[in-house]
Amino acid sequence: MNIITVLTDFGQRDPYVGIVKGVVLAINPGATLIDISHEVAPRDVKEACFLIPEYYPCFPPGTVHLCVVDPTVGSSRKPLVLAKDGHFFVGPDNGLFSLVLEGATAYEIANSRFMLSNISGTFHGRDIFAPAAAHLSCGVRPSEFGPILAETVRLPTLHPLVHGDIMTGEIVRFDRFGNAITNISFAAFTDFVHETQHLVEIGDLSFHGIGNSYYEGEFTCLVGSSGYLECALFQGNLATEKRLSKGDRVIVRRSIG
Amino acid sequence: MNIITVLTDFGQRDPYVGIVKGVVLAINPGATLIDISHEVAPRDVKEACFLIPEYYPCFPPGTVHLCVVDPTVGSSRKPLVLAKDGHFFVGPDNGLFSLVLEGATAYEIANSRFMLSNISGTFHGRDIFAPAAAHLSCGVRPSEFGPILAETVRLPTLHPLVHGDIMTGEIVRFDRFGNAITNISFAAFTDFVHETQHLVEIGDLSFHGIGNSYYEGEFTCLVGSSGYLECALFQGNLATEKRLSKGDRVIVRRSIG
Amino acid sequence: MNIITVLTDFGQRDPYVGIVKGVVLAINPGATLIDISHEVAPRDVKEACFLIPEYYPCFPPGTVHLCVVDPTVGSSRKPLVLAKDGHFFVGPDNGLFSLVLEGATAYEIANSRFMLSNISGTFHGRDIFAPAAAHLSCGVRPSEFGPILAETVRLPTLHPLVHGDIMTGEIVRFDRFGNAITNISFAAFTDFVHETQHLVEIGDLSFHGIGNSYYEGEFTCLVGSSGYLECALFQGNLATEKRLSKGDRVIVRRSIG
Repeated sequence: MNIITVLTDFGQRDPYVGIVKGVVLAINPGATLIDISHEVAPRDVKEACFLIPEYYPCFPPGTVHLCVVDPTVGSSRKPLVLAKDGHFFVGPDNGLFSLVLEGATAYEIANSRFMLSNISGTFHGRDIFAPAAAHLSCGVRPSEFGPILAETVRLPTLHPLVHGDIMTGEIVRFDRFGNAITNISFAAFTDFVHETQHLVEIGDLSFHGIGNSYYEGEFTCLVGSSGYLECALFQGNLATEKRLSKGDRVIVRRSIG
Repeated sequence: MNIITVLTDFGQRDPYVGIVKGVVLAINPGATLIDISHEVAPRDVKEACFLIPEYYPCFPPGTVHLCVVDPTVGSSRKPLVLAKDGHFFVGPDNGLFSLVLEGATAYEIANSRFMLSNISGTFHGRDIFAPAAAHLSCGVRPSEFGPILAETVRLPTLHPLVHGDIMTGEIVRFDRFGNAITNISFAAFTDFVHETQHLVEIGDLSFHGIGNSYYEGEFTCLVGSSGYLECALFQGNLATEKRLSKGDRVIVRRSIG
Repeated sequence: MNIITVLTDFGQRDPYVGIVKGVVLAINPGATLIDISHEVAPRDVKEACFLIPEYYPCFPPGTVHLCVVDPTVGSSRKPLVLAKDGHFFVGPDNGLFSLVLEGATAYEIANSRFMLSNISGTFHGRDIFAPAAAHLSCGVRPSEFGPILAETVRLPTLHPLVHGDIMTGEIVRFDRFGNAITNISFAAFTDFVHETQHLVEIGDLSFHGIGNSYYEGEFTCLVGSSGYLECALFQGNLATEKRLSKGDRVIVRRSIG
């Protein structure tokens, strides 16, 4: 298996993503490198964290997922390899993998044999993570990189909270169309509302019922391709037209009976 | 043949393009995926429509061209496969393929064997089009996807109109350099002007003669790499400096004698 | 060896990069195409010039580096192939390769056998450079493209200047994080400061000492992954928050004793 996906906050102006790929190809010239996004908001570990469970299951088992959003590069945060469901994840242990830790085994990348010979303080994507991803794609086993990490970092406040008949979540990101993607998964939502009437609110916007497609009304709340509740404005940009911000509260109200 | 090009309006912030590629690679791990653009203006079927005949002939026969600009995803618009000149096109039947329909055979994608098992109402790029492209690249014949579509959607008002000695076209898009690309093909232009004197106008801008290169004058009208008339400002950005907009009229005047 | 990197100022909205890749794949369907950046500022040969020595050594020998920032396309500037350290470079002879000329052999691309049959005045990336890169990746030797170019274009004022105890360089580009990357290489810097006290200044900003990581202080000057001095604002964007511009002077002061 030779597929390596790449998710970063490096942007696309700079040569950093290309450099990471050069390091991979110098180790495994047959690798198939697939960009997920390099436009994660700079240093926004939480935004990236929610993307990972959205894209990784679409790839075949054996895929290596290289994920580098690493604001504290050069500090004592550990580099890791995660094995889960036949997939491999490589990146910093800073909470980025919070939503794929369940059922995963984490290994510290400690074996310098699998790193570049000079480790900078600024670019572990090149020096540590890219080589690790390349070696994994060549068949090196996760346990060869270093010891199991018993404790891994989890981001706090990822999930919506329930108080009585109110569930409170937040906007995690906006997609290109201005759709507001929340941290309320369809599973959490259905567990909460059961068969009751419910209302989804963001500020003074109200969404009644859950739609199936964007063209069903002007304002629609639906289960997006992410598996999370997503609010949209048909033919428009909800984010800019309603001045929403990342982190804005999303409230689900249920009314029993 | 394993080459699959990808044209969308998904942007590059979101994981949607990566997800499409994951679905393709899960079916055909040997596919070579080539991005054309993901920055088509959101939902602008017409802009994308003009791009397709520009890039597809540069690829070798056998290439599969996956094109997803799909504002009415989830409605009754049909998914299709087009075969033309040894190339294959996959996407929604919403006019996107208007400029490559001639000489093409269109098939509805109806056979659920070539789709993901769950079809969402929001992301047919992942659920229907990516699998179809992957299966085509594996050698599945277009006719295996479903029945021939006798009628396909064509966008209205794609071509310039001629009244007497005036041809009226429009600006279809701006490229990164601010060059204004029109819907007036070189063939339509030469048919119209023959050997007569002529003038190209956009608002109060006049372009005399057709140039060969951008550096020939301050304002140049030339036949761009697209095969369409294109107006440019040397070392500048015509779009922003002259406040042009997509859809602005482009007039060619000919004077007989 | 089948790896071809691509650096341009084409942007990612337009189909130009995809077209270049189509031309490559029509000649060498097995090529592995790696994007470095297409967001070089339009026509900024100098910005691109500084990127090339940053990324090329990360790729394995045998890699072909296609570089197209070509504001005078269609003029008499020559197309060239460079061979250096087992790497190949393809692009216009307009100064783009100034920083990799040392130890390189340059050949003019003159043999029309390795070009498309029609050469436009606007898009040599497609017509000349892409085919050359593809043929190189197929094993064509640089000398087959044309005669050795004894003289190649070098950009003036690339390097910092020293007057007494002051070295004057400039900001060459900003990366996505707003870090200001200078034209002062670590080698030039250490040659200049030796073991003396020193201060790095940009406008009224002063940087004391050279850091190792971005999180070491609010304002840090360090040797970035480029091998050049780089000034950064931790958790912020130095470029926008301090209103810096490309070309701003960067001064290093040394005080002997």
